[in-house]
Amino acid sequence: MTAYTATVTVRLKQGVLDPEAETTKRALERLGFDLEGLRSADRFEVDLDADSPEAATDRADEMAERLLANPTIHDYDVHVTER
Amino acid sequence: MTAYTATVTVRLKQGVLDPEAETTKRALERLGFDLEGLRSADRFEVDLDADSPEAATDRADEMAERLLANPTIHDYDVHVTER
Repeated sequence: MTAYTATVTVRLKQGVLDPEAETTKRALERLGFDLEGLRSADRFEVDLDADSPEAATDRADEMAERLLANPTIHDYDVHVTER
Repeated sequence: MTAYTATVTVRLKQGVLDPEAETTKRALERLGFDLEGLRSADRFEVDLDADSPEAATDRADEMAERLLANPTIHDYDVHVTER
């Protein structure tokens, strides 16, 4: 078993309204910043032990499918590194 | 001017309690997943125009300092790519 960290990034699908990002963008503009767009995402760093990077990725994928992301409105990606 | 996307990742400093992550970890364990730890972070993808990657990084750094992160409890990092 090797120790891995799986980083799961969960973002809203294109076309899903993101009022938090919209508010953050407006707040930055009020502070005088010039920006074209802003998207927000959640990031989970999961420490787990697995036999291979593939096994760690599969497990993190399943975590995303079952709990971390809502497939109706979210896309996610998983990136695994050795810890 | 070139179009860049600056990714700002904001995480809690070590030692700061993270009840959201703790709840998520327990929920995953209840679903039968085996994990050593879980940390959550916020990720902002900011589209901006700048003269150089350094200028884009500086601007995103300032956004983090002034609004996106709270220096008392957060660490952040900035990663810039061309759009």
